[in-house]
Amino acid sequence: MDRSTSLLRLILLALGAALVLLVVRSAFRLPRGIDTPTTSLFDDEATAGSSCTRFAPWGCRQADRIKQKPPSHENDVPRHPLDPLTISEVNRARELLRAHPPFASSPSSMFVHSLALDEPDKPVVLSWRKGVDPLPPRRAVAVVRFRGEAFVLAIDLASGAVTPLPVPASGYPTMTMDEQVLLCYTPFRDPAFNATIQRHGVRLSDVACLPISLGWYGPSEENRRLIKIQCFSAEGTANFYMRPIEGLTVLVDMDTREVVRISDRGAGIPIPPAANTDYRYSRHMQDEGDDQQTAGFQKVRAPSMEPGPSSGPRVELVDGHTVRWGGWEFHLKADARAGMVVSRARVQDPGTGAHREVLYKGMASELFVPYMDPTEAWYFKTYMDAGEYGFGLQAMPLVPLNDCPRHARYLDGVFVAADGRPYVREKMICVFERYAGEVAWRHSESPITGLDIRESRPKVTLVARMVASVANYDYIMDWEFQMDGLVRIKVGLSGILMVKGTSYSHLSEARGNEGDMHGTLLSENVIGVIHDHYVTFRLDMDVDGADNSFVRVEMARQETGPGDESPRRSYLRATRRVAETEKDARVRLSLYHPAEFHVVNPAKKTRVGNPVGYKVVPAGTAASLLDPEDPPQKRGAFTNNQIWVTPYNKSEEWAGGLFVYQSKGEDTLDTWSERDRPIENKDLVLWYTLGFHHIPCQEDFPIMPTVSSSFDLKPVNFFESNPILKQRPTKEDDLPICTASTAA
Amino acid sequence: MDRSTSLLRLILLALGAALVLLVVRSAFRLPRGIDTPTTSLFDDEATAGSSCTRFAPWGCRQADRIKQKPPSHENDVPRHPLDPLTISEVNRARELLRAHPPFASSPSSMFVHSLALDEPDKPVVLSWRKGVDPLPPRRAVAVVRFRGEAFVLAIDLASGAVTPLPVPASGYPTMTMDEQVLLCYTPFRDPAFNATIQRHGVRLSDVACLPISLGWYGPSEENRRLIKIQCFSAEGTANFYMRPIEGLTVLVDMDTREVVRISDRGAGIPIPPAANTDYRYSRHMQDEGDDQQTAGFQKVRAPSMEPGPSSGPRVELVDGHTVRWGGWEFHLKADARAGMVVSRARVQDPGTGAHREVLYKGMASELFVPYMDPTEAWYFKTYMDAGEYGFGLQAMPLVPLNDCPRHARYLDGVFVAADGRPYVREKMICVFERYAGEVAWRHSESPITGLDIRESRPKVTLVARMVASVANYDYIMDWEFQMDGLVRIKVGLSGILMVKGTSYSHLSEARGNEGDMHGTLLSENVIGVIHDHYVTFRLDMDVDGADNSFVRVEMARQETGPGDESPRRSYLRATRRVAETEKDARVRLSLYHPAEFHVVNPAKKTRVGNPVGYKVVPAGTAASLLDPEDPPQKRGAFTNNQIWVTPYNKSEEWAGGLFVYQSKGEDTLDTWSERDRPIENKDLVLWYTLGFHHIPCQEDFPIMPTVSSSFDLKPVNFFESNPILKQRPTKEDDLPICTASTAA
Repeated sequence: MDRSTSLLRLILLALGAALVLLVVRSAFRLPRGIDTPTTSLFDDEATAGSSCTRFAPWGCRQADRIKQKPPSHENDVPRHPLDPLTISEVNRARELLRAHPPFASSPSSMFVHSLALDEPDKPVVLSWRKGVDPLPPRRAVAVVRFRGEAFVLAIDLASGAVTPLPVPASGYPTMTMDEQVLLCYTPFRDPAFNATIQRHGVRLSDVACLPISLGWYGPSEENRRLIKIQCFSAEGTANFYMRPIEGLTVLVDMDTREVVRISDRGAGIPIPPAANTDYRYSRHMQDEGDDQQTAGFQKVRAPSMEPGPSSGPRVELVDGHTVRWGGWEFHLKADARAGMVVSRARVQDPGTGAHREVLYKGMASELFVPYMDPTEAWYFKTYMDAGEYGFGLQAMPLVPLNDCPRHARYLDGVFVAADGRPYVREKMICVFERYAGEVAWRHSESPITGLDIRESRPKVTLVARMVASVANYDYIMDWEFQMDGLVRIKVGLSGILMVKGTSYSHLSEARGNEGDMHGTLLSENVIGVIHDHYVTFRLDMDVDGADNSFVRVEMARQETGPGDESPRRSYLRATRRVAETEKDARVRLSLYHPAEFHVVNPAKKTRVGNPVGYKVVPAGTAASLLDPEDPPQKRGAFTNNQIWVTPYNKSEEWAGGLFVYQSKGEDTLDTWSERDRPIENKDLVLWYTLGFHHIPCQEDFPIMPTVSSSFDLKPVNFFESNPILKQRPTKEDDLPICTASTAA
Repeated sequence: MDRSTSLLRLILLALGAALVLLVVRSAFRLPRGIDTPTTSLFDDEATAGSSCTRFAPWGCRQADRIKQKPPSHENDVPRHPLDPLTISEVNRARELLRAHPPFASSPSSMFVHSLALDEPDKPVVLSWRKGVDPLPPRRAVAVVRFRGEAFVLAIDLASGAVTPLPVPASGYPTMTMDEQVLLCYTPFRDPAFNATIQRHGVRLSDVACLPISLGWYGPSEENRRLIKIQCFSAEGTANFYMRPIEGLTVLVDMDTREVVRISDRGAGIPIPPAANTDYRYSRHMQDEGDDQQTAGFQKVRAPSMEPGPSSGPRVELVDGHTVRWGGWEFHLKADARAGMVVSRARVQDPGTGAHREVLYKGMASELFVPYMDPTEAWYFKTYMDAGEYGFGLQAMPLVPLNDCPRHARYLDGVFVAADGRPYVREKMICVFERYAGEVAWRHSESPITGLDIRESRPKVTLVARMVASVANYDYIMDWEFQMDGLVRIKVGLSGILMVKGTSYSHLSEARGNEGDMHGTLLSENVIGVIHDHYVTFRLDMDVDGADNSFVRVEMARQETGPGDESPRRSYLRATRRVAETEKDARVRLSLYHPAEFHVVNPAKKTRVGNPVGYKVVPAGTAASLLDPEDPPQKRGAFTNNQIWVTPYNKSEEWAGGLFVYQSKGEDTLDTWSERDRPIENKDLVLWYTLGFHHIPCQEDFPIMPTVSSSFDLKPVNFFESNPILKQRPTKEDDLPICTASTAA
């Protein structure tokens, strides 16, 4: 079709959707901004009417809230070379883009898929001195689509220069939030769809739809931006996820909003009942006609976590993005794609007092979430949440007291809508000091030695948290910093399951074919489908400087020989192997071939000669068992190993490729690493994949309690001795005085 | 030798040791009780002088403290069938033993190695109704040694009947604390030892020695109770562990206290310096002449954890041993060997309100800690801390505010000294409500769906904790109960490393032979030796009743075929396999052959037909790689698999055997399981081993920060839906009002 008509068509479709919504909004309310523009707070163009167009309805909602408590980001200025683009910088970049050919010919045909800081080169950032040097030139990098074509552009905000950069050979950019929202309403303008819905016995006004990325399964799906939309009944529950209209899949062209194909394989599968699925506390209260002392609700006696008096370390948030606490200093920011980015993490050496570099940049790079059902309505569900949906775009405001403790500090994110306008995501990240009742170190002497020693030091840590709600799943991402130099990176999976409708209301109806359910019967007509989650982190380690090496310290059984003169037959021996090239550093973990994985600075030794390093310490994880030649696994090939090491390359940030949407797996961590570049004594990037297998159980119905796992970055011969030695025990006076709150 | 003279010899040795101690006590103080008897609080025999004999000096220290705050255990009476023996019951059992032939002929020759409740049979406990039924008959089981022979005896406390039980064929009972203490001083009466010490240039008054169990390495070590003693210099530091007199090993006959052999392989190995090894805060303060605002000490701004107002669930401690909280109810007690025992853990069903049985009894059954150095002074270090040293005996009083939060409740333990007298271990277990800033469940709707939903529920849990300080290592044992039915069992390793002296003061001196160090150079003349830790838990699961089955739910790649009509080539398929016999239930975990491990009640199904169960969920762990035929691995064969299932057998409680000291591995979980008994629909016991490899690093010097791992017992189709659905969100009023403490 003629690409030049696509914008017009888009507008018409949006208007059509708005009309439909007059019908559906009772159960399923469209963000107000779509039909109710309000005044923008962020627009620096005097002529502009509103940022609250169809493109940024969530911006409007934020703006409404801002009336009460303005976030004051309009006047933000960057203070650190890594600070994200400010509102005025976004507006400036937008102006420059709109004035740039070919976009200048039709600025409203330009859709901004991403617009973010183009970080200065590492040496520039590393040599910058706060309060002494001016900020390095501010630059942005944008991904835009214009008349069906993708562009990647570097923007010099000072000079105004806009420079095209190479565009990936396959795949499409991360969806804009705007189109994700509109896609939910797209099917309703198709009469065949509406008829299908009616055949399923659902009122249109009860239907809620979700856009589901379709992966890539061969040439028939190439050369157009496609998505599959599936729908649910929201009748009688906010938890429409538990009420799938099973088997109904609407293939849509994302650019034209055209319904390409409707597949309806759900004959005979009822929509599961709404009863007992709504999870909202407020709704339960309403139902029970009771406000507080609630029918069967368990009121948690939450121990509060309140910091003690002011003489200890405190959480400092300097210039909005630099966190200082307990010897740590790092830069923290929201990112539309990665969610949360930790940069320049440095830890104080208790001996010298110097802040020593550990991690130049760390973030979730990509996710891979394959479902394990090969049938028509499910096979394609192999999400890559960061590159397809935007892990940061999906991060919603955190819920004080429940998502983070009372004393938490919050950071907002500034993101960019499809029309290039900025909006603020409030309370997107929280930072708090954590005391979990754990012990950092302790030792008692026993009566054996007769020394009356009881030494103990509580563990207090700092947590930076964000939560991405990618439709049903909520990913709780924690970076936890310990005073002894350890960093724990933790992923919690929460939210709601993606479930499948079934005609079964009892397992006995499966008659021995339970395997063909591809999951567990969770409730009448509801199957929880088996799936995996993989989160691949990119960790640009700079241990005491950029040039590092990767060392495997392998443990293996050593049989004793006659020369050992030992009654022992065997022991464990450790062997250090320095990885020379990328392929040496591909690690598949094994319980029976254990190893430690060190990133060392070969130029630095401790007093007694050990190489200074940090190690990555896996904990519970899972490995993908899909066929490596299966299309989803080729795209998700960055999960083929748990650990990879690559030489630093600014263009290798996204493990599945810059454009993962419908990508073929041609530009992944696996293909980069296949080049087998030298990595010894180089600026290295360490990649770690945290995995989960999930066989649902009834406890995952109708909500899914948080399951979490983590891995650590841990100093190994980095310090001369343990920093905890310098931690003083806690005394009564260190703690606040707490009394019961007046209202009970 | 004539066994009948051994007591006399023991007394003489003890007196000899006491004389030596007049010299050594400045640096290394013997518990006061040894030479300073005080009045007993616990003795109910009017004629007795003191419980504070040479046998229970730690009891004396407790008694001193008790003057300020009596623990009031003298009048304790049992209130639950599983309550541990009270002080008067111990005294009663002691009387009965002393009156029993052959002990009556010489009661003071009888050494009590263990004296504990003989738990009533399971059906008796299960049918007992509090407040209705009288307690079942109270019985004790004792392990005593008398003139070189071991006895196991059942004692009926009411009737006074004492009945001999079978004695294991190999091995010796857990050492008494008394002999462990005395053994520290035994070498000093040997002139050859003293001369050796002088050759090492150490003053006798600076020497501290530790008794080290020697495993079993063949016939030459059979038929006598042997131990190896190694020594350290305590000059200039409380952290004598960092100052080994390397290579010096004193083989001692535990019964005769005879020095059998002195091995001194440490020529040329200096004693590492004391500088920077003392970890005591008080000592540092003294050195610095500073009380609070300390030279470089980091004062932690510990967020306190204080419970909110009284309307939520609270920790109830009923009758001293029954804990109720958040739907959970369980019996909790101290145990001299296992440390801490959780019994009859039952969780409330949010649907029916009924308390449903999960776990009849859970505890650490045995530990295995092999060091990985085959040389003369190290090869034998393959500890089994529970059965050799007594994991509970080594548990010291917890340090309030540092080991447990301010609001923690404490439980004491009542243990038995070698002479059969009871003593109290104060504050041995703490129980507290925990809020770690985590999220039990949360979900936000994204702008995609337009529903403005932000639901979140904080995770509040209950922790029961004890810490065993087995000489240098401190094992922090947590049982954590969640409101959704999950139980997390966590082991933290803290304390101080066992290190090896070396002539090296810089790694370069190893000249490429680093492997022969068997560890890491941590500081000048100090090597941290590679070692493993395994903790094997015995979990008598009773999921909704005693008869359960063990099911592996195996996940494997399934290739799609033409019949699947799917563009996918592969997916993960789960297959359930019910274990028929013990060998079917031996599990070696693999990342590439993942499975879930369910204990189900085959007689109970959920509404939709799923078998009701709990699963054991491993997280990070390690597997022993020693040669299965290596003597230590034969003794530690209970670590050959991570999971085992056995049919319930009251006599199979200790994974390494009842008598593990010098045992040959003839009576372990491995040998029991080898019988391959049927386990389908039986009363089952699940065994799980948590493992750690430890390659020390400089951060482990001079103290070792806590490293922890855990596994979970998690409901799987146990509840009809998730209990968190019934948790109300936290509101400001739920939290206490906290202000800074006045003293800063």
